Amino acid sequence: MSPPPRLQGPVHLRVPEGDTHERKVCLDCHHICYENPRIIVGSVVTYEGRLLLCRRAIPPRIGFWTMPAGFLELQETPEDGAKREALEEAGARIELDGLLAVYTLAERSQVHLMYRATLLDPQVSPGIESQSLEFFSYEDVPWDELAFPSVHWALKDWFETKSEKHLTPRRNP
Amino acid sequence: MSPPPRLQGPVHLRVPEGDTHERKVCLDCHHICYENPRIIVGSVVTYEGRLLLCRRAIPPRIGFWTMPAGFLELQETPEDGAKREALEEAGARIELDGLLAVYTLAERSQVHLMYRATLLDPQVSPGIESQSLEFFSYEDVPWDELAFPSVHWALKDWFETKSEKHLTPRRNP
Repeated sequence: MSPPPRLQGPVHLRVPEGDTHERKVCLDCHHICYENPRIIVGSVVTYEGRLLLCRRAIPPRIGFWTMPAGFLELQETPEDGAKREALEEAGARIELDGLLAVYTLAERSQVHLMYRATLLDPQVSPGIESQSLEFFSYEDVPWDELAFPSVHWALKDWFETKSEKHLTPRRNP
Repeated sequence: MSPPPRLQGPVHLRVPEGDTHERKVCLDCHHICYENPRIIVGSVVTYEGRLLLCRRAIPPRIGFWTMPAGFLELQETPEDGAKREALEEAGARIELDGLLAVYTLAERSQVHLMYRATLLDPQVSPGIESQSLEFFSYEDVPWDELAFPSVHWALKDWFETKSEKHLTPRRNP
């Protein structure tokens, strides 16, 4: 484990020598605090052609539907992260079947890596971040109760590519 | 611009309530410092079938060859980041032609998004992070003088997929 960040002194915005962007720099210890975009990993999970969605139990968008997804952790591959999120949020053991999409929410500095996945075992149970789980046919997806635009995008991209064996990842519409 | 991180007090590793991983927590202000994997964006750039490589002028691996790549910046899309790196490191204006690979260096907490790209204008010039630039045919790539394993992977993956119109991104070998 690396040592804690040394940002004890006054922190100011500066462009470090040889750099092109402003960074937060500690004027005491000269530590430069690089801030980077964050990676969300998740999956569109199906079982016998039906889509597994989770009703959110935590903010933002409590009560709205999403797919299992969350922040990639340190020292984790995106594939392992997507599997971990499915297990944590839905008790779902999944197998990945290609990278469905790379979405960017630039204004939030988020890059979403969304996989296509199938459920290995229909026994699922909501984790603490989910109120409930449900399997929907594509036609019955509650489009007006989805938590985020990226959930819309991923479900539509899944539908449009579901017969493709080799996926070319989609991007933001 | 968000305020500077408030990590003035003693920082300890704790698992916050409802969380699954240890985080750095300030015992004075209770600020939780989430650390996340970082995204590297880059491209395998060709011009008339030859590969553009940059001889590194900065550590690590000074003097070794790499493709234009670097950390994605806040509020930037991966595509824009890959184009920016090509411009900064090689003065190269490029057009992207698909996501070539998603590599993970889990032990370094890095996810690499590598694109296939073509050069729009053969006039290139090394940026401050490059000693020199050169165009190589695939057969003449200096395999023993490449800076990182991921450079090997990307060049090989480029070669193996160069006739594919629709790319399915490769992963670590």
